[in-house]
Amino acid sequence: MNNQSSSLLVKDIGEQGLLQILQRFCPAEIIGDDAAVLTTEPKQSVIVTTDVLVDKIHFSEITTSPEDVGWRAAAANLSDLAAMGASTLGITVGLGLPGDVAVSWVEQMYAGMTQCLQQYNTPIVGGDVVRSPVITVAITAFGQAYPQRIIRRNQAQIGDAIVVTGVHGASQAGLELLLHPEKVKNLTQEETKALIGAHQRPKPRLDVLPILGQIFDSSYTPISHFPVSGMDSSDGLADAVVQICRASKVGAVVERTQIPIPQAFDHWLTKEQALQYSLYGGEDFELVLCLPKQPADKLVQMLGQGAAVIGEITDTSIVILQDQNAEIPDQVLTLSQGFQHFGQL
Amino acid sequence: MNNQSSSLLVKDIGEQGLLQILQRFCPAEIIGDDAAVLTTEPKQSVIVTTDVLVDKIHFSEITTSPEDVGWRAAAANLSDLAAMGASTLGITVGLGLPGDVAVSWVEQMYAGMTQCLQQYNTPIVGGDVVRSPVITVAITAFGQAYPQRIIRRNQAQIGDAIVVTGVHGASQAGLELLLHPEKVKNLTQEETKALIGAHQRPKPRLDVLPILGQIFDSSYTPISHFPVSGMDSSDGLADAVVQICRASKVGAVVERTQIPIPQAFDHWLTKEQALQYSLYGGEDFELVLCLPKQPADKLVQMLGQGAAVIGEITDTSIVILQDQNAEIPDQVLTLSQGFQHFGQL
Repeated sequence: MNNQSSSLLVKDIGEQGLLQILQRFCPAEIIGDDAAVLTTEPKQSVIVTTDVLVDKIHFSEITTSPEDVGWRAAAANLSDLAAMGASTLGITVGLGLPGDVAVSWVEQMYAGMTQCLQQYNTPIVGGDVVRSPVITVAITAFGQAYPQRIIRRNQAQIGDAIVVTGVHGASQAGLELLLHPEKVKNLTQEETKALIGAHQRPKPRLDVLPILGQIFDSSYTPISHFPVSGMDSSDGLADAVVQICRASKVGAVVERTQIPIPQAFDHWLTKEQALQYSLYGGEDFELVLCLPKQPADKLVQMLGQGAAVIGEITDTSIVILQDQNAEIPDQVLTLSQGFQHFGQL
Repeated sequence: MNNQSSSLLVKDIGEQGLLQILQRFCPAEIIGDDAAVLTTEPKQSVIVTTDVLVDKIHFSEITTSPEDVGWRAAAANLSDLAAMGASTLGITVGLGLPGDVAVSWVEQMYAGMTQCLQQYNTPIVGGDVVRSPVITVAITAFGQAYPQRIIRRNQAQIGDAIVVTGVHGASQAGLELLLHPEKVKNLTQEETKALIGAHQRPKPRLDVLPILGQIFDSSYTPISHFPVSGMDSSDGLADAVVQICRASKVGAVVERTQIPIPQAFDHWLTKEQALQYSLYGGEDFELVLCLPKQPADKLVQMLGQGAAVIGEITDTSIVILQDQNAEIPDQVLTLSQGFQHFGQL
């Protein structure tokens, strides 16, 4: 943090002053034109995704520092690129700010954003800063992928294994701990830190893509089609499986005992609570991938801890959650949860 | 307008209901994945620009219908692409909406946006819809251009002619007429309509790019470098000339009597007012281009009405406004106007 600017407000320095500060976070060569220039690899398509985050709706001072707001905004967009099988090219940031926001808040938010972006060699290539009555962060992220290796939702095949790249429920648990610190009892310091970290600093799973490359390039010709479909679990694991099945016109069986959850859940939550968090918590930003069984097992083995085959694509039209231990009754998973944002007003 | 939905509010139909309506404005093949796929021509770079518009700051119910909000938002972004010398690939739309916005408002805004986009064969390729206390429209536009034909601000050469592609001040005049309808006296119906139209439905000058191609491809080998620099005049003509000069480390002389203004200004405004509108009004979305004199004259001739050479790039470090009729005293143009958005709070 820059001490000199810590007491300054956005309205004190104006658009030009703010732009000068924010340009420090961008590569020098891209500054100063009406638009940014991106150079893509030959024969790769450009992949584009966009997200809007609004203060007090998508983040809150109670649970999210300005650095975390920036990190999470960047991570959510990079996760969408990973979910499409795309490597990253850059992001643009559209910022709406009230005049009475501290300049240091904006600097810290950008610092968090670039901390995340730097881990994936991704520059901020452009943006816009405007006055707004509410802090708004609109990010558009660009990536590239060979067209035949783009991961879509609608290509899941009957018999495919369903792989998750990591544990689910951790982000929701971390949020609960931030909102209700008294719930920390029965958790070790390390467990608490890990769950809160999962909420504040989620990691987009761009690391999965070169591993998929390794698995398929031994048996497929280079730049051939990948038999992989999927999406990320930003809106929850249940949502991801149901969305993939709906788009692919197939069904699925998911085995409850195979869903990887944080170890802490075993002694901290009931089985029902743990299932609720892992299916509907959301924002774990893992990938949910459908692919033939053999490469699926290889993928889980190469990804290591947290990755698992959780079920199989079936020729039905429903997603059934089973429990081989019969501790939870079988149920049909639907999209009914979530998506009520506007109704809440 | 869809009568069935005219009384519905956004909160009545929720995110999923709204997305279903908005998807009607997008090509079917791009819907339903985490991100959109754009295919570029070989050897062209991708050009990216982003803008955020906020209700009551960038548009107002008094002067701007929902259709006009959509048109203007699309036009501003396409203008940035034109200013870079790029043809259009698509846009993404990030939308923040209060729950009590009428669904018909959103539909009409999208209708206006697609009306503009369709004139330039540009699809909406993706987006995001979220709850927000204030209507926010964040657009990111993508285009493509051969790297050697990208128009930058920092390449103006001493001796270049400065060309504007059309009249300046019309948009500001149109806004004045909408805010103060009593000012319509002394204007014909046709003049009033033209000025208001310039404000509500500005046209991005993408049509200038193939003309530049025609001019240079006769004397240059195809896909060679264009000796053209410039930007658009969205923040005003004075701002554009000063920005180009600052980025190119040159100066300029602008001749007041050569600045094309709407004919109505002659009998409606004083010379000082007309100059103020044309230099600082902004949002005319014309291009301000610097290029050698011969192709500059050709460009003006081919563009026809409204286009003009307004001055010349000089080896000084200032931009001087001269008046060959000596009706207005010479002055140095600066960036001092505008850019006070945050201070106004």
